Formats: sequence, structure tokens, C-alpha cells
Amino acid sequence: MSGSDAPRVILVAGTTETGRIDGISAAGASREALLHTPGADAELLTFGDVVRAPAVPVSPTGCPTPAVVTRAVRELLGFDVTVVDGGLARPTGAPTVSVGAKPGRDIREADPVHTAPGAFTAGREFGRALPDERVVVGETIPGGTTTAMAVLRALGEDGIETSSSLPENPLDLKREVVEEAFASSEIEPGQAAHTPELAVRFVGDPVLAVASGLVAGALESGTEVVLGGGTQLLAVAALVRHAGVPRPATLATTSYLAGDVPGLESAAAALDLDLTVSDPGFDVPAAGPLSAFADGVGKEGAAMGGALALADEAGRLDAVTDATLDVLDRVTDRERKRERGD
Amino acid sequence: MSGSDAPRVILVAGTTETGRIDGISAAGASREALLHTPGADAELLTFGDVVRAPAVPVSPTGCPTPAVVTRAVRELLGFDVTVVDGGLARPTGAPTVSVGAKPGRDIREADPVHTAPGAFTAGREFGRALPDERVVVGETIPGGTTTAMAVLRALGEDGIETSSSLPENPLDLKREVVEEAFASSEIEPGQAAHTPELAVRFVGDPVLAVASGLVAGALESGTEVVLGGGTQLLAVAALVRHAGVPRPATLATTSYLAGDVPGLESAAAALDLDLTVSDPGFDVPAAGPLSAFADGVGKEGAAMGGALALADEAGRLDAVTDATLDVLDRVTDRERKRERGD
Repeated sequence: MSGSDAPRVILVAGTTETGRIDGISAAGASREALLHTPGADAELLTFGDVVRAPAVPVSPTGCPTPAVVTRAVRELLGFDVTVVDGGLARPTGAPTVSVGAKPGRDIREADPVHTAPGAFTAGREFGRALPDERVVVGETIPGGTTTAMAVLRALGEDGIETSSSLPENPLDLKREVVEEAFASSEIEPGQAAHTPELAVRFVGDPVLAVASGLVAGALESGTEVVLGGGTQLLAVAALVRHAGVPRPATLATTSYLAGDVPGLESAAAALDLDLTVSDPGFDVPAAGPLSAFADGVGKEGAAMGGALALADEAGRLDAVTDATLDVLDRVTDRERKRERGD
Repeated sequence: MSGSDAPRVILVAGTTETGRIDGISAAGASREALLHTPGADAELLTFGDVVRAPAVPVSPTGCPTPAVVTRAVRELLGFDVTVVDGGLARPTGAPTVSVGAKPGRDIREADPVHTAPGAFTAGREFGRALPDERVVVGETIPGGTTTAMAVLRALGEDGIETSSSLPENPLDLKREVVEEAFASSEIEPGQAAHTPELAVRFVGDPVLAVASGLVAGALESGTEVVLGGGTQLLAVAALVRHAGVPRPATLATTSYLAGDVPGLESAAAALDLDLTVSDPGFDVPAAGPLSAFADGVGKEGAAMGGALALADEAGRLDAVTDATLDVLDRVTDRERKRERGD
């Protein structure tokens, strides 16, 4: 649809209290702002600007959300975007599909994501019903790499190291949180093998539940799936495999993410995923504020890696920097006008 | 966006118990099917097929929903579609924006649409926040012409006769229902002038509340608005004027609707609306099942008139018949496969 052959991009957007643990995530300027980030990302992809969210998300150091890159690629290629509610905590102006997911609590609590099994099942039915030949699935959830780490451990997939939206991956803090998650939950590491919905329920997040259900259903019905993201999408793939769905898929991520995760290639191969790594080339002076990505902030998110892979397929990768700067200028200009009350 | 300059098409989708009164609406094969029609229309526009809805809506005589025409034009032009929940009674697989609207009750009850004032206000804020230069607004709600008739009378806009999705407009039945609505409600005909939210609350439907709020807000923020539909969109325009928003807009409808409503031109002019009437040319043998439209079934709905106006602007009006037949073939084929359980 949408005047191009580009596949539908599906963004699963949600939140957890885990994401609000100090120092866990860079997906927002403050702990309160974090709760608005997924809805704001969804609005950016849908409308090209925020509509109900208070502001365009930035990292604590001012790096813009990867959603501006995905939106820029959308303006170049014209693909459809469908947002699925993976547990949004704040109202969004973006249209969303509901599969019953609610915001996740802190995984250091006993049963933090009790909507996970239902959301996994409803997401799977939705994925089966999609008429698309091919979809790109991405995520936006602050703190998602920590819950992904816990889920991988619950599945017994220990080989995979998860990334971070921070330049310095706070691995010790994450491991500590994951340890506490298992200490408080009913499952031990490895014990949720073949029961993905339990891994997500006891130590995960609602976005992983919805995305893995959706991907499992899409693959089962013969839809080609590109996982557009980093280690959270790797966790989605692991959940899909543990749900007994073997059909191959693709993991499309950014060069910034790939550079941050040793062993990404072997991890992808172990899950029968073709790996595509795209470099948007933000490491040049002309990229201005986008150079923060090249410095390791953000790295991936809101299907950025999937969008870049589509831009590359279409031979438009070299147009992404300018298109992204245009989106940034536009939203910044409108933000100023709102502040002036125009 | 979406690779074309076509404006965003916004579909407001909802239901009322008024629509389930026997003989009021043709927007479904049965009284139960009626409740699924708006969600199914939303899914058709979004995905090109139904996803959660049980079937593609047809009239009792088998005429397909106008949504297949709007979808076909979307596949020709590649415009964005945004669905706003105007009181859906059944789950839909289409992503929807919530402004707090709930399904309407029967207008013969005392206070049938108590969510109307809140939905009008939230819809207005959403409309103001839209960054689009131009939007097309359409509706899908069974029984909508009857509630539109009551709302126009509540506003004191009596000159306007409303249309019908049935070949023979059941005007006597509608007038009877409208009389009972006023008999049971707190307002008299004409008494809701300048208080549109009360007209919609006491004798209207949630789609009129959401659509008029959205259009008022969009016009107030300088967005150009095309009302894509018939007499229900005329009622939306009347509500917007009574909300004190004078900015001109366009009413884009089908030749089938225009042929059914004497005085449409003067009514549009009285509300400061430019009138655009498009003929999809379904009155030829090659149009096959679409000829039912030319016979007066359906006539308008799901932004069909607005989509045809966009096709005409783009010089693609003559491609609409084939594109619509393609959509029909595709969904019919998939429906057969589902029935066979493939």
C-alpha cells in the first residue's frame, strides 16, 4: 500500500516500571518523560510530530529519539505504519491496536506482567490475520534491554549480551536488577524454556509479549518478518523459537547497535535469523545533532534498523541524513511555536 | 506522507442502538452484523481486508460497503488513513485513536450519548494538534442519517433533508424515531442552537460528536478540511458552525448521494461549504457488483465521496472501477479461503 512496495512497519509501544529505575535507560530526558516516550515515538511515526505527547523525546544528553530517523525514512519511501499498544502508560494521539497489554510493573516484583500470556495469544491471532506479504516489527519501550536480558536468561539463552541506549552500558546495574527479578519470581533461569509467555510474564515486559506473539502469528501464516531493532528483537526471536515457530526471519539493525554487541552475528545465526546491518552515516559533520547516534547514544529503537534496511533496499540510504535533519527542523520549529503559544 | 501529496483521510467509526432499529440502515446484512460494520470498514481501509471483523460488510441485498471503494482509491493514490474511535461496539483490528467516545444508545431514550460533550472537546484538541495541511474526514456508523436528521432539527437547521443507505429512504420511520427522541429528551427542536455538544448528546450519535469536534479543531488551527460524505457530514458542518467556527470547508460526496438529496447545494452553501460531487461511473455493465451503488444502495459512507474527489484531483477517477473490483476479488478470495480453513 501507500504508493510503494515497502512493507508495513509495525511498532509495538509500551512501558514498564523497570524502565524507570535510575540509570537503566536513556529513552527520555527524565523519569517522568520516559513514560511519554513510546507514545511520542508512535505519534512521530504516524503524524510526523507529537500530537498528544508533551515533547519529542530526547536522551538526557539531548540525542533525539531514533523515531525521527524511522519517520524520515517513511517520508522517503512511503510505507504504512501500524502501532500496537504494548502497555502504554500515557494517552497517545497515535492510533493503536489493542491486544490487551497493560503497562508492566518492576520485574523485581513477583508477577510484573500478568497481561503477558493473554497479550501474547491475542498478538499471535492478530499476526496470523494480517494480509501483508511482509512486515517490519520494531519496539519502543524504555528499559527494554534489561527486561530482554532477563527474558533471554529465563529461556536459557544465556549466550546473548544485550545492548544499551546509553553510551556506557550499565551492565552491572542490569545484572543486579535481573538477579532480583529471578529472586522474587516463581521461575529460575532456564526454567521458562518452551513457555515464552511465562518468561515474559515473570521477568519481561508487555512489548516483548505482544511483539513475540505478533511475529509468531505472522510467520505461521506465511508473512515474511523483518525484526527491525537490536537485542530486544533478538529476545523476540528467541521467544518465537521457544513458542515452536521455526520459520526463518531477518534481523535488521544499525551499525551502532551491532558495534555494541559482540557475538550478535552468532546469536542471530543460532536463532535462524539473517542479519542485516545498516550504517546511516551520521558520523560526519553534516549530520549535526545526529552525530550523537554515532557516539553511541540511542543506537537503535522505534524500528530504526528496519527502516534503514528498507532505505538501503530502495537505494535511498544516502538520503536518510538530510531527510532526518528535515524532520528534526520541522518538529523543533513547531515546538518553538507551541511554546510561544502560536 | 506515504509517497504522495494526498491528504490524510480520517475515518470516525462508531455505533448506536438507534442504528439497530428495524429498517433504519442498510449498513450490514443483519442487526448483529451492523455492530461489526464500522470496525470492518476501518480494517478494510487500514489493511485492505478484515482482520478481526467476521466479514466484509454488505447490505441486506449484497451491495458491498463503500469502504471497498475508499480502499481502492487509497491503493491508487497512497494516502494515509487514521481511524478515530467514535463509539465502536465490537473489537476492531484497526488501530484507533481514542477521544473517550462510547457506543450511543437509542435516541428514543432520555440521555443516549452522555460521552458526547467530552468526546467533542477531546476531538477538538486532537484536531487542533494535527500537523496536516489538509485532511479528509469521513464516517462509518449504521443509522447515522437518522441521528443526523435529529441533530439538524435540534440545531434548528430544518431545511436539510437527510439521505439513506437504502434505495427507498424510510423517511416516515426516521421522522417517527426523531419525534420520539425529542419527546423523551430534555431539548426541543431548535433549542440546541449554539450548543452542538448538547444536540449530539440528547438526540445524536458519538460519531457526530467526535467528527464535529475534530473538524472544528482542525479548522481552528488552519488545517484545510474536506468533509468526505453526505448528509451526516452536512450535520457535522452544521455542528461546527454552531460551535462558532466559521472557516470555509469543502463537502465532497458521490453523485448517488447528491441525486438522493434535493437542496444539497443550497444546504452546503448555507453552511459555507464548497460542494464537490464525484461520479465513480458504476452504472456500466463492466462495474459488475458495483452497479448496486448506481441503483441507490449505499450511496456514500467510509469517506467514499472524499476519496473519489481525491481520485478526480489526481486524474485517476477512471481507474476507480477496476481498482475497486480488484479489492473486492481479493477480499472475496481470502474470505473463501478462511471459510475453507486454509
